[in-house]
Amino acid sequence: MTTEIEKHITGCRTWPHPEVVEDLARLRQIAPLTHCITNSVVTNFTANVLLAAGASPAMVVTMEEVADFVRIAHALLINVGTITTTDAEVMLKAAATAQQTNTPWVLDPVAVGALKFRTDIVDQLIRFQPTVIRGNASEILALGGFAGNAKGVDSTVSSLAALPAAFQLAEQTGTVVALSGEIDYVTDGKEIITIPGGHEMMTKVTGTGCSLGALIAAFLPVTGTAVRAASAASALFAEAGERAVREARGTGSFGVGFLDQLSTIGMETRKIYI
Amino acid sequence: MTTEIEKHITGCRTWPHPEVVEDLARLRQIAPLTHCITNSVVTNFTANVLLAAGASPAMVVTMEEVADFVRIAHALLINVGTITTTDAEVMLKAAATAQQTNTPWVLDPVAVGALKFRTDIVDQLIRFQPTVIRGNASEILALGGFAGNAKGVDSTVSSLAALPAAFQLAEQTGTVVALSGEIDYVTDGKEIITIPGGHEMMTKVTGTGCSLGALIAAFLPVTGTAVRAASAASALFAEAGERAVREARGTGSFGVGFLDQLSTIGMETRKIYI
Amino acid sequence: MTTEIEKHITGCRTWPHPEVVEDLARLRQIAPLTHCITNSVVTNFTANVLLAAGASPAMVVTMEEVADFVRIAHALLINVGTITTTDAEVMLKAAATAQQTNTPWVLDPVAVGALKFRTDIVDQLIRFQPTVIRGNASEILALGGFAGNAKGVDSTVSSLAALPAAFQLAEQTGTVVALSGEIDYVTDGKEIITIPGGHEMMTKVTGTGCSLGALIAAFLPVTGTAVRAASAASALFAEAGERAVREARGTGSFGVGFLDQLSTIGMETRKIYI
Repeated sequence: MTTEIEKHITGCRTWPHPEVVEDLARLRQIAPLTHCITNSVVTNFTANVLLAAGASPAMVVTMEEVADFVRIAHALLINVGTITTTDAEVMLKAAATAQQTNTPWVLDPVAVGALKFRTDIVDQLIRFQPTVIRGNASEILALGGFAGNAKGVDSTVSSLAALPAAFQLAEQTGTVVALSGEIDYVTDGKEIITIPGGHEMMTKVTGTGCSLGALIAAFLPVTGTAVRAASAASALFAEAGERAVREARGTGSFGVGFLDQLSTIGMETRKIYI
Repeated sequence: MTTEIEKHITGCRTWPHPEVVEDLARLRQIAPLTHCITNSVVTNFTANVLLAAGASPAMVVTMEEVADFVRIAHALLINVGTITTTDAEVMLKAAATAQQTNTPWVLDPVAVGALKFRTDIVDQLIRFQPTVIRGNASEILALGGFAGNAKGVDSTVSSLAALPAAFQLAEQTGTVVALSGEIDYVTDGKEIITIPGGHEMMTKVTGTGCSLGALIAAFLPVTGTAVRAASAASALFAEAGERAVREARGTGSFGVGFLDQLSTIGMETRKIYI
Repeated sequence: MTTEIEKHITGCRTWPHPEVVEDLARLRQIAPLTHCITNSVVTNFTANVLLAAGASPAMVVTMEEVADFVRIAHALLINVGTITTTDAEVMLKAAATAQQTNTPWVLDPVAVGALKFRTDIVDQLIRFQPTVIRGNASEILALGGFAGNAKGVDSTVSSLAALPAAFQLAEQTGTVVALSGEIDYVTDGKEIITIPGGHEMMTKVTGTGCSLGALIAAFLPVTGTAVRAASAASALFAEAGERAVREARGTGSFGVGFLDQLSTIGMETRKIYI
């Protein structure tokens, strides 16, 4: 099955692919207002990732405001990582509004399949047609109806093993799927883009996966297609991760260096700050 | 109108202004217990900023405890950044208690004017007479009844353009207004203190504005006046920001260096740690 | 009374004590899934501490999921730092489930004694027999029925002064008590282990105490006894703190360096990353 799938691979994105360079420049110019409804562990890191890359993050999370803010925002992220009863209602409202207003949005179905409540909510959220679903292998397998073998938020399956499920999920739902792992894959159910690179240390800093979902959202109003948005964000993450690991002394300085790299990548020839 | 306003400028605070040096020394001696009810994106950074500067942060956020803790605390911060239905009730209780017990408090009306729910709550909070209102130009304009052109949490207007609104707001409410921007202004509706300095990179790390509000709160029980407290906190932030940017390799190391600078400023002649 | 107590001291743990080295190696091998219900200030830092040390953190915090996840997890942490009405219900459910399923769990009773609501909840939580209670001197004194002189979350009493209360608490409840301070003490009401070291700068970064509780939880399914788990985590923290302070330029880089040290300690002879 895997070789059958691999026939659909049409491209590869690594920095400095001209499309990624161009999309990043546009992101920095537009600074898309990116509405994040995300989990309590990664709010700070997610905001800092978006700011570093050049987007404008905003977390608006109450029922009274969420629909109004989806209307103002350029893009939306919904991440169910630490979902609560109240959050679920807010997320459903946000997703319904995004569909109504054609606001592009990303669904990050953290640990879907492992716990019934969030699995039900994710099922409902998907009906509002996310522009992109971003997940690891276990999550994408779970969404595709396969057993994902999830262990908390971390996948125990390789991304390649989940690629057929990702392709099929994209095909059936009309949603672009961004599958994260040793190699990232982005697919719309027709073509598949591969994004190699990155580093295992990215799994040792909380929020690298979740903030990738946020950056994909930020790229959606910037690039021509959702495949391109997800590919650009993934390629930037892979490159920033590789650069950061070279100078890291451990996971703490890696996280800091990752933000440093995101905030300076593509500006190599000019000194922007000072 | 601006030149008319500028006549009220009576001073400028930059590190090492003797008053700021003195106030910081007292802050470190007293370590004021600073009760923060703030947004979910910046709780960690805010606590670390307060600890770095020498204050003692505490986040107590439930209805059952909030009034009791306002009574124990030396100062209070209320920041509506990620306000929820439940938060609103807690914030109103905290503000009412602070007024009753004469606990000095800071209101940070994040994105007021942009969203109806928080605008209503902020209106109610203001009736409990915050000691200081800290905001960016868009927020201060919105509070003054002008259109603030807010884009999420970031202002799109210069602080100078909002100075007349800040002055008027202070005059009418009897609250000190701390207006943040390229130049910070602090006014009680009679005099205006300017605080130049800082660096644009401060807008690329989430929570620098929000934690300034917290540090102003921490200074309130320490300094003689609210103008002095807001000026001292703003001058420290400007200096720490300038120092940090010199050694930053991007936004990640800038955020880390900013805390380093806050935790060591004024201790140049002695090695405090080790 | 203190000298009477000191007779029970049976050992001391400092890195590289063979037991600590062995326990850390096993932690990294097992990567225990550590369910954290903790306060909003430290979720990110706690997750990063667990990842750095080699555990697998997961924050699942809603009533609909909490019992199911306690069943999946290897260990549980409950920290009441920013407890809300809803959190309280979730925590009680988690604790009850942990007792039922024999999931080892740590209770961190932040600021117990200072505020009535959390004090009542902590009393109820203790009835579900936490494997370990971790607290500072004020908190342990308060649990023992002594006035703890708490000031927010920070203790104003030395850990040695609270050692008799810790010993007695352990003796009466059958719970291991991990008492944090200049010197850490771990006791089961029979023996006492001392863990010297660490550095005062650890009190200037938010979450060092709270994440110690999480790391103790992570060690529980790994080590033979709860005393050994609490001792290993405390010894690692002390060593990582001492190493990090040597290269810190202030509290910001200290926090980063602390994670770096935790993620590399015990790997000195081999280059693990890259």
